[in-house]
Amino acid sequence: MRSYRKELWFEIPSRRGFLNITPEVEAAVEASGVRDGLCLVNAMHITASVFINDEESGLHADYERWLEKLAPHEPTWQYRHNLTGEDNADGHLKRQVMGREVVVAISEGRLDFGPWEQIFYGEFDGRRRKRVLIKIIGE
Amino acid sequence: MRSYRKELWFEIPSRRGFLNITPEVEAAVEASGVRDGLCLVNAMHITASVFINDEESGLHADYERWLEKLAPHEPTWQYRHNLTGEDNADGHLKRQVMGREVVVAISEGRLDFGPWEQIFYGEFDGRRRKRVLIKIIGE
Amino acid sequence: MRSYRKELWFEIPSRRGFLNITPEVEAAVEASGVRDGLCLVNAMHITASVFINDEESGLHADYERWLEKLAPHEPTWQYRHNLTGEDNADGHLKRQVMGREVVVAISEGRLDFGPWEQIFYGEFDGRRRKRVLIKIIGE
Repeated sequence: MRSYRKELWFEIPSRRGFLNITPEVEAAVEASGVRDGLCLVNAMHITASVFINDEESGLHADYERWLEKLAPHEPTWQYRHNLTGEDNADGHLKRQVMGREVVVAISEGRLDFGPWEQIFYGEFDGRRRKRVLIKIIGE
Repeated sequence: MRSYRKELWFEIPSRRGFLNITPEVEAAVEASGVRDGLCLVNAMHITASVFINDEESGLHADYERWLEKLAPHEPTWQYRHNLTGEDNADGHLKRQVMGREVVVAISEGRLDFGPWEQIFYGEFDGRRRKRVLIKIIGE
Repeated sequence: MRSYRKELWFEIPSRRGFLNITPEVEAAVEASGVRDGLCLVNAMHITASVFINDEESGLHADYERWLEKLAPHEPTWQYRHNLTGEDNADGHLKRQVMGREVVVAISEGRLDFGPWEQIFYGEFDGRRRKRVLIKIIGE
């Protein structure tokens, strides 16, 4: 069995944002030498997500507006977590809707994807350096 | 290490629907010859889900009504994604709530399930052929 | 390839609650002898979740209130599932938001975690014994 580990670091300049990290994950799969296996990609922070969906800016605007409706940032005092001095409680909620991680099959040395699947980092409390973990196992 | 890959194809005749795919996944586990390992089952399309819950028609009606409340299909013009000519933005949102994939343990050659766990394909933009990927690794 | 399987049993004394199970999962990783691999932790019941987030009681109160808003327990007659004699339909919905499972990388014999990641069991229909499955594969 082979295994491979890589961290990706980002600093999203705004509170929230979506970043396509598919090329970085593809590069990790190639570097791993794994032909058949599983690739885990997870946010290492608990106000961020890794998810798979479409590279389409209108859809990302829809996600932003929808998540803000489901778990509004304001008023920040509505959340008990923010009594700790944080203002990111909504980010902990949004991250649960969008998910922490994806597991992607690797077949014939490549991400085994459907036609429109792309991997995104979703930031809900940005403006600081944060990490994603890629872990690959297989043969 | 053994690995096994199989695609399942479906055409759900309505926009939305849930399909129990547990027998197909069990058959894949048996065909794989894997006794101990992990089984990934994921939608290969981004307006569909794979999830684990109960085979109970009342619950499925509850999911349908609940998801429609969280992310309504109508009016379609409320979503920017639909300006691209699509009418499926709500499907991209619903899929995030229900999830893209499940990872199930394989033990003693079988899906290692609790008493009521069943695997479902959740369709949110049907009436065309779409795929699920099963990827198994183990020994 | 090594594999390891362990069940954790709980009885949460109230309908809903969150329990930090990180120490039990860490112990399983150590017992497995796996240095590099993947660790699946999943609820074996369909009105419960396993998720990763922060060990902070204010945040847990926020999750409780937020989930109750997204999928209220009362009135129980609003859900068709409850016509079967159950009163836990809301638990099946809440579990989809919080997720069934997490997959965590194992590196150098330990859970490969970011600074604040902790694993929780989320109960949405408690007051009876229920199980979590830990399945580890790797080398």
